[in-house]
Amino acid sequence: MAAVNAAAAAAAAAGAERPGGCTVIDRRFNLYAVELPKDPVTNQIRLGYGLTPESASYPGPLIEMIEGQCFAITLYNQVPVATLEALRTDPNHPVGVSLHTHGVKYTQMSDGTVHSNSFVPPGGSRTYIWYAQPRNTTTGAQGTAGYWWYHDHVGGGPHGTPGIASGLFGGVVVRRQGDPRPDRTYVLAFGDRQTINLRRSSEADTCDEQNPVPGPTCVVAKVGEKVEFLVIGIGNDMHTFHVHGHSWADTRTGVIDGSKQLVDSVPIIDNKTVGPGDTFGARVIAGESVGPGHWMLHCHMQFHSDLGMSTTFHVLDQNGAMTAHAGHAPANPVQAAPAGGGQDATAHGNHG
Amino acid sequence: MAAVNAAAAAAAAAGAERPGGCTVIDRRFNLYAVELPKDPVTNQIRLGYGLTPESASYPGPLIEMIEGQCFAITLYNQVPVATLEALRTDPNHPVGVSLHTHGVKYTQMSDGTVHSNSFVPPGGSRTYIWYAQPRNTTTGAQGTAGYWWYHDHVGGGPHGTPGIASGLFGGVVVRRQGDPRPDRTYVLAFGDRQTINLRRSSEADTCDEQNPVPGPTCVVAKVGEKVEFLVIGIGNDMHTFHVHGHSWADTRTGVIDGSKQLVDSVPIIDNKTVGPGDTFGARVIAGESVGPGHWMLHCHMQFHSDLGMSTTFHVLDQNGAMTAHAGHAPANPVQAAPAGGGQDATAHGNHG
Amino acid sequence: MAAVNAAAAAAAAAGAERPGGCTVIDRRFNLYAVELPKDPVTNQIRLGYGLTPESASYPGPLIEMIEGQCFAITLYNQVPVATLEALRTDPNHPVGVSLHTHGVKYTQMSDGTVHSNSFVPPGGSRTYIWYAQPRNTTTGAQGTAGYWWYHDHVGGGPHGTPGIASGLFGGVVVRRQGDPRPDRTYVLAFGDRQTINLRRSSEADTCDEQNPVPGPTCVVAKVGEKVEFLVIGIGNDMHTFHVHGHSWADTRTGVIDGSKQLVDSVPIIDNKTVGPGDTFGARVIAGESVGPGHWMLHCHMQFHSDLGMSTTFHVLDQNGAMTAHAGHAPANPVQAAPAGGGQDATAHGNHG
Repeated sequence: MAAVNAAAAAAAAAGAERPGGCTVIDRRFNLYAVELPKDPVTNQIRLGYGLTPESASYPGPLIEMIEGQCFAITLYNQVPVATLEALRTDPNHPVGVSLHTHGVKYTQMSDGTVHSNSFVPPGGSRTYIWYAQPRNTTTGAQGTAGYWWYHDHVGGGPHGTPGIASGLFGGVVVRRQGDPRPDRTYVLAFGDRQTINLRRSSEADTCDEQNPVPGPTCVVAKVGEKVEFLVIGIGNDMHTFHVHGHSWADTRTGVIDGSKQLVDSVPIIDNKTVGPGDTFGARVIAGESVGPGHWMLHCHMQFHSDLGMSTTFHVLDQNGAMTAHAGHAPANPVQAAPAGGGQDATAHGNHG
Repeated sequence: MAAVNAAAAAAAAAGAERPGGCTVIDRRFNLYAVELPKDPVTNQIRLGYGLTPESASYPGPLIEMIEGQCFAITLYNQVPVATLEALRTDPNHPVGVSLHTHGVKYTQMSDGTVHSNSFVPPGGSRTYIWYAQPRNTTTGAQGTAGYWWYHDHVGGGPHGTPGIASGLFGGVVVRRQGDPRPDRTYVLAFGDRQTINLRRSSEADTCDEQNPVPGPTCVVAKVGEKVEFLVIGIGNDMHTFHVHGHSWADTRTGVIDGSKQLVDSVPIIDNKTVGPGDTFGARVIAGESVGPGHWMLHCHMQFHSDLGMSTTFHVLDQNGAMTAHAGHAPANPVQAAPAGGGQDATAHGNHG
Repeated sequence: MAAVNAAAAAAAAAGAERPGGCTVIDRRFNLYAVELPKDPVTNQIRLGYGLTPESASYPGPLIEMIEGQCFAITLYNQVPVATLEALRTDPNHPVGVSLHTHGVKYTQMSDGTVHSNSFVPPGGSRTYIWYAQPRNTTTGAQGTAGYWWYHDHVGGGPHGTPGIASGLFGGVVVRRQGDPRPDRTYVLAFGDRQTINLRRSSEADTCDEQNPVPGPTCVVAKVGEKVEFLVIGIGNDMHTFHVHGHSWADTRTGVIDGSKQLVDSVPIIDNKTVGPGDTFGARVIAGESVGPGHWMLHCHMQFHSDLGMSTTFHVLDQNGAMTAHAGHAPANPVQAAPAGGGQDATAHGNHG
């Protein structure tokens, strides 16, 4: 406690805002909040965070940290005043955006809230300091390794609801030394209006099958690659995250690297409830045992998936191509059902 | 990865569809999708899976596997065309049903989806291959032991929503060598319209108290029996599963068989949120410490339980009878409250 | 099993109702169900449990047990008949209240339900016996240590829905020898109408900032104190519990005191879905690393927080004061944004 307080006092005295334990800034970078083209389907306002204004997107860039690191992130608010005014309904609410994060440590000055005055008016900037605190075996405080997210907490309202709904959110992963490293990470935000990353139906899966480019709307991997899904719940609704053919361990990292007793006890799941603000990591080996294919990835609330809350985990073969037997039915009629049947010549017998 | 791909390639070459690792088919049996009498209360269409057409039910038969086993299940679609047409709203959607499963491994040919053309038109059949993959200590892939479910993914729509809502679902348990074996397993699907296994209120508890026959609407055990509840979320709503007087460990198997540190860390629960597609196992010892009785088992969302999403876990004494002191109030007025009081002579003092 | 039955038989023979294993009553005390002033905002009926009639509150008093203990709690129903009649809609439903608990062991006579006739008519009393059963290494039955709740199950309906909605609920903690002890415990029930402990907005945070008195509507601690949140879901809705700047381990106790493998595997979270009937403990060290401040504590369903389902975790400095740099913006303009900017002079560079 003494150390905690001394650090806080020192931070206050210095006019800085470092959380206790953050003695060195390991990395400094900028983040830009900008307006993006309106949603092509709904015409809703779209905003994004980017490492440059030009690269802003929703979700924003994945921020990866290692326990022990401290980042200083300077947020530039380049969203037009008129846009921010359009997002709010209460004229007394200040106009601005912020950077609020989950999981890692930050002082009130980096909280990204109105009451702490830690937000950014239009045209301004502000530096937020995040500390990926490691486990403290003295106090018993756990480390911050895990799957988290960052988001606006001011745009349009005191909880940033319109800001988040417009696109101001992104993923954070804090790793511990020794954590398994993925080959690919996909951030998938399950949200309102039956959306994944604010898109639904074909907008949520824009992969060019000849030359798939991984991104927020193209989930693709080669068979055998270690793929990490960072799942975030945003908005107002409950959802369940499900992917066909793959499963993961319900642990911090989504894998088990433990004793026999842990292996015997940890649930393996392929479907998980995610509420707003929840985050978890699902680690899978693409196509492991099941092979290449167009594996559905969807909310298992039936009316959500029916209304388009569904995308595809495209697992390519090792050459980066989709194998014929795993193709879409129209394009790959191999083993297609004969008229009237769907018959399969594989031997089958009675249950006995 | 090489092994994965080689297996997939071999499967494709053979025109077969075995997932990697499935070298021998351990068991072959048939599953029939049939139409059942309409719901006696709502007049809704009811379908069921059965090991024979005559034994079809909702939920369908429990399928148990041991890690390492591979099953070949041939699904016969005996549901009338007119019924399947009535379930769909989009005339372009194909008419058929399928077998999609969770947790275990299967290739795209056993996915049970429209886009992979792995469903069964009326009058047809198709063999699905499931592999209960064991833990692979080389790749780090976890095993498939756990509580899962199977369901239609095509009937009436691309996610099988009307098929599932009509009754095409059932439980899957994959056990690992050494897992505790239950004396009884009950599959309980918490679903829409405040239903348990598609029934509510008295329809969800049809036990003959003189001669209770365990089944989808009669949850009964003798005191001391190890009872396993396989809880499934289906449909569109969130639910919470609660049973009176009993609790379980929030692990893969619902029990703890671990180190002191695991025992000290694993949550013990008697209420658990279950969203659509979620499954878990709750393992209890019937009446352990609490004795025989009519123990309520219900969704703890208050309006759900009030509207009939409640059944009873009937715990009989060791002779298979319900003890007098634990009976329903009307039938067993022992220790009933005197007029005006509910007084209990047990000594009590002040808190102090 | 023999022991279970013998104990039950002995209990039945004695006219008592002790669950098996409860050989001695460790503590006896009274609990009073009384009517409280109507909700000042909504004018709804408010009831409360109290160790005395005068101290009744919602939530009711926290009941702490140690594994192995057995409590005899005598409930006096002092709620006026007219009030109980007003809560019910079915005139055939009996008038009364009860004490139903989660997690610990109790026989049907202490179930607190209508069908077991274990409730209390107006003016009456009844003794409920709870047993905090320890782990039984012979049968494999897990212990009852954990975070639980007690509530009415009869007031106004067979699931006590109106009774709970009026305030008849409270927290239960069962500890195991060696469990970490908190400095402070707060019971926070997330419920319908966007409420925390049945209040929202300013009613949920009534702290006098000069002299904060911890209680159901004032969540406060000094930096470094070990604070335990017992989170309960009540009513009909799903919620997510989130607190700014703090996180906890998703274990039984909310902390990890385990092997490296456990530490590496257990998720650390700062947001958790809680459905009706669910309970969990979140253990944090107030201000650890992040320092003092007015830390928001809210449901992360955006419309819930926007509608007032938000309170504050006030973390004071070690002298019991709120430090200037962590204050509300209006009161503490230190480091406030200059007009037009929110500029921060902290160095920042490009992401490279």
